Amino acid sequence: MTLPRDVKKVVLAYSGGLDTSIILKWLQTELGAEVVTFTADLGQGEELAPAREKAERAGVKDIRIVDVREEFCRDFVFPMFRANAVYEGTYLLGTSIARPLISKHLVDIARETGADAIAHGATGKGNDQVRFELSAYALAPDIKVIAPWRDWEFKSRTALLDFAEKNQILVTKDKRGEAPFSVDANLLHSSSEGKVLEDPAETPPPYVFMRTVSPEEAPDKPTIITVGFKNGDPVSIDGKAMKPHELLAALNDLGRDNGIGRLDLVENRFVGMKSRGIYETPGGTILLAAHRAIESITLDRGAMHLKDQLMPQYAELIYNGFWFSPEREMLQAAIDKSQEHVEGEVRLKLYKGNVIVEGRSSPKSLYSDALVTFEDDHGAYDQKDAAGFIKLNALRLRTLAKRDGR
Amino acid sequence: MTLPRDVKKVVLAYSGGLDTSIILKWLQTELGAEVVTFTADLGQGEELAPAREKAERAGVKDIRIVDVREEFCRDFVFPMFRANAVYEGTYLLGTSIARPLISKHLVDIARETGADAIAHGATGKGNDQVRFELSAYALAPDIKVIAPWRDWEFKSRTALLDFAEKNQILVTKDKRGEAPFSVDANLLHSSSEGKVLEDPAETPPPYVFMRTVSPEEAPDKPTIITVGFKNGDPVSIDGKAMKPHELLAALNDLGRDNGIGRLDLVENRFVGMKSRGIYETPGGTILLAAHRAIESITLDRGAMHLKDQLMPQYAELIYNGFWFSPEREMLQAAIDKSQEHVEGEVRLKLYKGNVIVEGRSSPKSLYSDALVTFEDDHGAYDQKDAAGFIKLNALRLRTLAKRDGR
Amino acid sequence: MTLPRDVKKVVLAYSGGLDTSIILKWLQTELGAEVVTFTADLGQGEELAPAREKAERAGVKDIRIVDVREEFCRDFVFPMFRANAVYEGTYLLGTSIARPLISKHLVDIARETGADAIAHGATGKGNDQVRFELSAYALAPDIKVIAPWRDWEFKSRTALLDFAEKNQILVTKDKRGEAPFSVDANLLHSSSEGKVLEDPAETPPPYVFMRTVSPEEAPDKPTIITVGFKNGDPVSIDGKAMKPHELLAALNDLGRDNGIGRLDLVENRFVGMKSRGIYETPGGTILLAAHRAIESITLDRGAMHLKDQLMPQYAELIYNGFWFSPEREMLQAAIDKSQEHVEGEVRLKLYKGNVIVEGRSSPKSLYSDALVTFEDDHGAYDQKDAAGFIKLNALRLRTLAKRDGR
Amino acid sequence: MTLPRDVKKVVLAYSGGLDTSIILKWLQTELGAEVVTFTADLGQGEELAPAREKAERAGVKDIRIVDVREEFCRDFVFPMFRANAVYEGTYLLGTSIARPLISKHLVDIARETGADAIAHGATGKGNDQVRFELSAYALAPDIKVIAPWRDWEFKSRTALLDFAEKNQILVTKDKRGEAPFSVDANLLHSSSEGKVLEDPAETPPPYVFMRTVSPEEAPDKPTIITVGFKNGDPVSIDGKAMKPHELLAALNDLGRDNGIGRLDLVENRFVGMKSRGIYETPGGTILLAAHRAIESITLDRGAMHLKDQLMPQYAELIYNGFWFSPEREMLQAAIDKSQEHVEGEVRLKLYKGNVIVEGRSSPKSLYSDALVTFEDDHGAYDQKDAAGFIKLNALRLRTLAKRDGR
Repeated sequence: MTLPRDVKKVVLAYSGGLDTSIILKWLQTELGAEVVTFTADLGQGEELAPAREKAERAGVKDIRIVDVREEFCRDFVFPMFRANAVYEGTYLLGTSIARPLISKHLVDIARETGADAIAHGATGKGNDQVRFELSAYALAPDIKVIAPWRDWEFKSRTALLDFAEKNQILVTKDKRGEAPFSVDANLLHSSSEGKVLEDPAETPPPYVFMRTVSPEEAPDKPTIITVGFKNGDPVSIDGKAMKPHELLAALNDLGRDNGIGRLDLVENRFVGMKSRGIYETPGGTILLAAHRAIESITLDRGAMHLKDQLMPQYAELIYNGFWFSPEREMLQAAIDKSQEHVEGEVRLKLYKGNVIVEGRSSPKSLYSDALVTFEDDHGAYDQKDAAGFIKLNALRLRTLAKRDGR
Repeated sequence: MTLPRDVKKVVLAYSGGLDTSIILKWLQTELGAEVVTFTADLGQGEELAPAREKAERAGVKDIRIVDVREEFCRDFVFPMFRANAVYEGTYLLGTSIARPLISKHLVDIARETGADAIAHGATGKGNDQVRFELSAYALAPDIKVIAPWRDWEFKSRTALLDFAEKNQILVTKDKRGEAPFSVDANLLHSSSEGKVLEDPAETPPPYVFMRTVSPEEAPDKPTIITVGFKNGDPVSIDGKAMKPHELLAALNDLGRDNGIGRLDLVENRFVGMKSRGIYETPGGTILLAAHRAIESITLDRGAMHLKDQLMPQYAELIYNGFWFSPEREMLQAAIDKSQEHVEGEVRLKLYKGNVIVEGRSSPKSLYSDALVTFEDDHGAYDQKDAAGFIKLNALRLRTLAKRDGR
Repeated sequence: MTLPRDVKKVVLAYSGGLDTSIILKWLQTELGAEVVTFTADLGQGEELAPAREKAERAGVKDIRIVDVREEFCRDFVFPMFRANAVYEGTYLLGTSIARPLISKHLVDIARETGADAIAHGATGKGNDQVRFELSAYALAPDIKVIAPWRDWEFKSRTALLDFAEKNQILVTKDKRGEAPFSVDANLLHSSSEGKVLEDPAETPPPYVFMRTVSPEEAPDKPTIITVGFKNGDPVSIDGKAMKPHELLAALNDLGRDNGIGRLDLVENRFVGMKSRGIYETPGGTILLAAHRAIESITLDRGAMHLKDQLMPQYAELIYNGFWFSPEREMLQAAIDKSQEHVEGEVRLKLYKGNVIVEGRSSPKSLYSDALVTFEDDHGAYDQKDAAGFIKLNALRLRTLAKRDGR
Repeated sequence: MTLPRDVKKVVLAYSGGLDTSIILKWLQTELGAEVVTFTADLGQGEELAPAREKAERAGVKDIRIVDVREEFCRDFVFPMFRANAVYEGTYLLGTSIARPLISKHLVDIARETGADAIAHGATGKGNDQVRFELSAYALAPDIKVIAPWRDWEFKSRTALLDFAEKNQILVTKDKRGEAPFSVDANLLHSSSEGKVLEDPAETPPPYVFMRTVSPEEAPDKPTIITVGFKNGDPVSIDGKAMKPHELLAALNDLGRDNGIGRLDLVENRFVGMKSRGIYETPGGTILLAAHRAIESITLDRGAMHLKDQLMPQYAELIYNGFWFSPEREMLQAAIDKSQEHVEGEVRLKLYKGNVIVEGRSSPKSLYSDALVTFEDDHGAYDQKDAAGFIKLNALRLRTLAKRDGR
């Protein structure tokens, strides 16, 4: 692939790490483009000051460092949790859901600054390139996207490091060696992939986990919490109202301390291969259990079953990078419609990796003692109705059985 | 509802407990029918000799006590687990899946003995009446079904006990009082419902759990096991081949000891109300995790996503009692088709309520180091292909963005 | 079933025909209730003055005759057509969609007049009883519903006619004999069922059709029309803006004259049996073709395929009577979300039963000459992208083929 | 893209037309490969002798001309019609379904002859490249695929024709000019696309249609036929048993004469753009109506609704080229399971574009007079059951209405 022509200004998703620092330099020197850096505080737990320093040192004049934690939780994470989205039965989509937000900001800054391209540091083997680019194209159809890791250079780590040294980019010693695995993190989760984790038959080494204690290390005493919901979103812990990102951060602390949210999986990437990941989603794991529990008493069966039926497709769309697509928005409209009365409180016991629902209550509860009781229900339910109900449900099966000579 | 006319012989699903003993007597005296009792050993962990004794004492001449544990696991539980079936995100369908088997035997015995009806002891408020009867009608369209608890008598517990005493059925003291909740059990699970559990806001009392230790009581040391699969079904533990019901029993022991498989939920019954249940599914909980893990390396993405998409409907069919329906059989055909190469081994760590996948391997693995590696893959994957892949996936989104003036 | 106690005032869905006249009298005399009649002008093409006269003659004091044609089209028919709803591949749901509207009015009038019950004339074998009652219960959970045809009396036609004569209800001669089939009609369609139509192997007699000429009788010259759409709804014919019910009436005329919209089918009723129906939906048949055509150029693929996938379930919900259910409303939210830009014009040729799309255009078209042309597209599409697109789509299939030893 | 190295022998999908003749020459001269030609008789209605002659003239030593009509109908078309597959509500997949068959033969011949590559003449803008290549890779993961029209040369028509003349390939005069549109044909359908058809607002010119008379030109007298089915497949017309391809050919004749099966649509291609097509599927259009009709009396509701729900995805898989995928095979297993008893006869009236179902009968009919009759059904159906059926179906809606304060 030839270099894109006529790129004058590029907005780069910049972490301040080695890889995007090299890309920054490469965009400046090889492409001859002016670079605007965008660094998002997604709650990944890293200092962002060094990113600013490095960008300044690289001569970047327009440096954008933005705290997007609240936006991330409010507009991306929480809408997704309304759907109880889980990819392939296990993965809570912690990396997937951050990518469209980053692309949205890249595109907005490109518009604001008159840049004609955006750039990211994802490789050609992963899902993130797809998520970044589909999101960008969906929001700015004529934007150019530059993915140096995939499209042009640096085909080997050595070539990359040579370029770095030639351009006086600081390479710490351990980078010259082999990082033992690759990491992504944000307020919702941390993921680790590759290298020492590549053999799915092998137990991951303990040092891979960076965000939770192990169930074994967690306290011997359970922690009991109550999560409050409104319109399908969590709004409080133990009665204390919180902003979305504060609440998720608090759940993360609770999950971390109690060994909650570790996951070792093999997943199917959109680009066609299987990969193994070690994920930690402490707060999200608690939130999913709590959301299901509050739905269990406030959501009608028809709504719940439709949600369950639509969920795999919804999760796949997010995983594959189609957040900004008409079909995701259609599904979101359906899901949001269902959440109007999803409110109340869920009491949970957190204990050594377990999230145990202990009770749920709601002013909007659909649970009815009168209907369900084994005792006299004073006419709330006429058991004789069940005979007719069964008879008509059975009618087609009986007709079939007769036809088939049973 | 009037009594069914012309019923001469009835096959009764008979547990030997108080309720079905009363029904047995009632069928004999009020209905004037000859009764054949059918008692299944489903692995519920109760002695069946007393059931025989009681039936004999009641004058039953044809007493059928059948060990169906292998059939139950092989033909019902394992096919269901191939689908990773979970109802409403949490319930493993432990009661639901036993009902069609019981009906099948009732109907077979009815045919063999010339009985014109079957009878069961389920009430008019629950799902089990539906499951029993839909299954029976699907297999024997002209069979009569008698459900005394629902259709005729015993509208209060007192009335029932009076009938029992009048008919010299032994009522133990604690039965005269209030049993604190209602129980169902088989090899796959135990369920507890009703009475002290009726308020979903209240934590269930510890004595409800009968089949597992609590996570807190479980050993401080993890247990590591390896489950082997073939054609999507578990076939061995730690390399030791086992029959289906032996294997499930062994998993139950492992789960029980490690505090695995407890569940406190509110579910939506087919008959229209919500109910709260406390379920224990120790072996099934391990099996689900293990099956998902072996699928993760042996199942193609297309097959897996289709399975995930079909699963909620499949689970709903079983929950609602439609095991013997064309649509369940169609879904089963699709699911079974996918399981041909689902084989290999999964290593699990069991620890205080957690089932942690630690590794999986298979001679049929689709996982490819070469494709996924961060290192040079020697041409297994051309990263440039990803650019075209993204471009064409983005094309419709870009067209849309242009139309919408983004 | 015993008569409902304490019913003082009933709102009756009253057509003025023999059956509901008998029910009216029965409610007054046998039940001793005051009756409010509700007669809807749904565009069924009958004079409503006789219904008023008859009700007056029967002593009804509160007679409600309401023209609901616009509401019917705007709030029920058109939202349903946004989904391209077709039941079992053929039926346009013409009867199904009218029932919830009628129930809504019955319930509203009951509230306004302090009535404690509603009544309808549907039998116990059909779908309409279900649709009326589910809708009523969903809007007024404590309303009593009286269905005399099903629940109490008139088990034979003779008994009914005897009651009529005893109560001096005029029975015309042809009613004393056998009406040859049963009819329902509204602005969207007419249906004929039963009696001479009961054998699905027999061709329906020509006199069954009441609303369309046959294709053979239709003119030898085609009619060309243009239907305009906005937000997914039809808004004009040949450039002339019309109200919803006027537009549907005009399409009906066009369809009738050109032999369009006849349907002979066997369908599966919700209550469990198959039935044979002869339906005429002249305008609706044109509308469905036109709506699909305008969607074909204005709807994105993702949105369209999601709609197609959801449609059977949406249609089933309406057929089964779940218009006022959370799951129908969720699906509607998703569907409506997709229709924002569904606007433009469709040119159709109507000819002897055929609705032939001849052209479509839209200011919101997503069709792009530049993309699709066989000629030089000046860079709109890079054919080389397709190679990568295919390679990555094929990757999992190739991995699978290698595993399977192909 | 650089030329593939080391290709020694190529199996070319060869029609004998100008385009594949040029590709043949190009493979021989530019690539220096030995070429094996494969020409399939798919029932496209063209003489295949000229293809042999031309291949011989080009020096091809291994010329394969195979009559695949029976295989095409039996193993591809009929299985697809069991599903009632329709893409985007209108397209019967006539081109899509032929591609995997061609790839299968290409791959088989490659294996037999030791060829290391296959080649096809599809462009980079269409769906056919995807279908050819996904099918090939799924069957032979290491096969090389050469698509000269997309990957290397001939970027303009002029360049192509110059190459042809230089290589003494006969170019007829009208080819030097502009063919007015592009055509594909097989036993199931003919499609026309491009050029004069590119504006979707314009009525297609009459000369586009090559396989059917127009409805206007069709006879004024209807034709009545009876189609017999067995296991979901058509097996006879008017009682005369036929092989699959003979039967489809006979339906094509009937359709052609009666103006049946014309379609003008805009569809969404897998590669991301919309395209306009004019399709003729005379026999297939009759077959779809007949199959739905025989299913209407022999298929249970549960099976039918599941089929309807799965169909859009099944059709999309075929459209997109995933015939040889695990998910298509899973769906097929489900569909085939449902067709066991789909047998009997359907009587159709064919008249000026209309396919009118006039009657259907089956020894396996599930239609029951006794159940459906308006007259006394002698206890086949107890109308009182409907009351309980409705009550329990309404229960959740009533609970909801109470909660929501209705």
